[in-house]
Amino acid sequence: MHWVRFRHNGTVTVGRLENGTIQVCDGGLFDDPQPSGETLALDGAELLTPCDPGKMICLWNNFHALAAKLEVAEPEEPLFLLKAPNAFLATGQTIRRPKSYDGPVVYEGELGIVIGKTCSEVSEEDAPGHIFGYTCINDVTAAKIISKDPTFPQWARAKSYDTFGVFGPAIATDIDPLTCSVKTVLNGQERQNYPLSDMIFPPHRLVSLLSHDMTLLPGDVIACGTSIGVGSMKEPSNSIEISIEGIGSLSNTFVQ
Amino acid sequence: MHWVRFRHNGTVTVGRLENGTIQVCDGGLFDDPQPSGETLALDGAELLTPCDPGKMICLWNNFHALAAKLEVAEPEEPLFLLKAPNAFLATGQTIRRPKSYDGPVVYEGELGIVIGKTCSEVSEEDAPGHIFGYTCINDVTAAKIISKDPTFPQWARAKSYDTFGVFGPAIATDIDPLTCSVKTVLNGQERQNYPLSDMIFPPHRLVSLLSHDMTLLPGDVIACGTSIGVGSMKEPSNSIEISIEGIGSLSNTFVQ
Repeated sequence: MHWVRFRHNGTVTVGRLENGTIQVCDGGLFDDPQPSGETLALDGAELLTPCDPGKMICLWNNFHALAAKLEVAEPEEPLFLLKAPNAFLATGQTIRRPKSYDGPVVYEGELGIVIGKTCSEVSEEDAPGHIFGYTCINDVTAAKIISKDPTFPQWARAKSYDTFGVFGPAIATDIDPLTCSVKTVLNGQERQNYPLSDMIFPPHRLVSLLSHDMTLLPGDVIACGTSIGVGSMKEPSNSIEISIEGIGSLSNTFVQ
Repeated sequence: MHWVRFRHNGTVTVGRLENGTIQVCDGGLFDDPQPSGETLALDGAELLTPCDPGKMICLWNNFHALAAKLEVAEPEEPLFLLKAPNAFLATGQTIRRPKSYDGPVVYEGELGIVIGKTCSEVSEEDAPGHIFGYTCINDVTAAKIISKDPTFPQWARAKSYDTFGVFGPAIATDIDPLTCSVKTVLNGQERQNYPLSDMIFPPHRLVSLLSHDMTLLPGDVIACGTSIGVGSMKEPSNSIEISIEGIGSLSNTFVQ
């Protein structure tokens, strides 16, 4: 099943994608929404982010290949920062350069885990029952901000500018992400293509470990971290697309 | 004016404090709520956090005295992390030690700025019109987590455990915080008593600068950072109180 969220008759509405058509549903995404009988063309719908996270937890250094390339030790536990909700952006919308920043703006294609049920201190075995599904993420980053101050790494700031928290287009509920790859295409050129099986902390383990740090709530999103191939978007206008087979393509423009 | 939030007849309700009585109001806190005519005894009300922030921005190194004591350079711009919403806790509620952590749990008494109007790229002169008021914050921290991993400082994790984002009891709208002090009393002993005039980035400047990084929304809270006197809560059960004259006292218990 692929779930989307959109504005319909002035109301935020959820729906299921079926053969390029949206089956409109009644109810909230995490409250077992049911088809209303109405259908809409996907083309005509303005998609929103597929959920409205209370928090987005962003992993750092979660792929063997990237840790090896950067020559950093693999972490013993998940390392993460939080991205602010003002950053959230849907597919089709425009990523914007902050006026106050003139350094490189970097794309990072990632898998996103969407929590479906409140979970606290769950085991790895019980984690799947708390995951609603998976989405694509572009964890956009103002790369020069991170190490700008020598006393304090500015992770949250570098990743929380408005429009820097891109995710969607849908939440897929029936995939095994460990069989999938993340592909990033910048201005028509493939820049990332890495297998999710290379994750240091894969989704079930990640949800279990993070749920021992903090309660995860329905709609919370875990951005699983990126792997090799990250780069900056340099053209005056850039098309940037993050795709995961079985989920879909998150497609945006970045303008300077 | 002092605003509080509480559950009343099963609904989250706002009210104004007047002589120890709550004047119940109709409407949301940021939508000009009006007295309903009903009053409640403050003693009988179970206060909630005075607002429900979409994000809590927590400043690091924002006091001259603390920077001098720690011998760190004063920052050129605000340095901050984000605290996750699952951490939020109201006055009177119990701060809990995470089961997965056995190191020191530290109190940090702070001023909180509550945003009242959406603001993006506002000047220092225009900042006051976007501030709703001020509250007390106990920015509880699992101190040993921050530097546990040598490759990545875990600020968000150390400060986002459930119950670690304590704020309240009220939002005061008519105070000049720069004339006030923050007092922290642990188990009856004063541990912090520092003037807010010592802030490196005072509230109006802070709101202006942060609004150039990210859009600030009604209910967002900026924790202005702490100063000297931070310490850990070591007893099996600890009373911890953060007071700012003109706002009130944020009073909690921490149990191991």
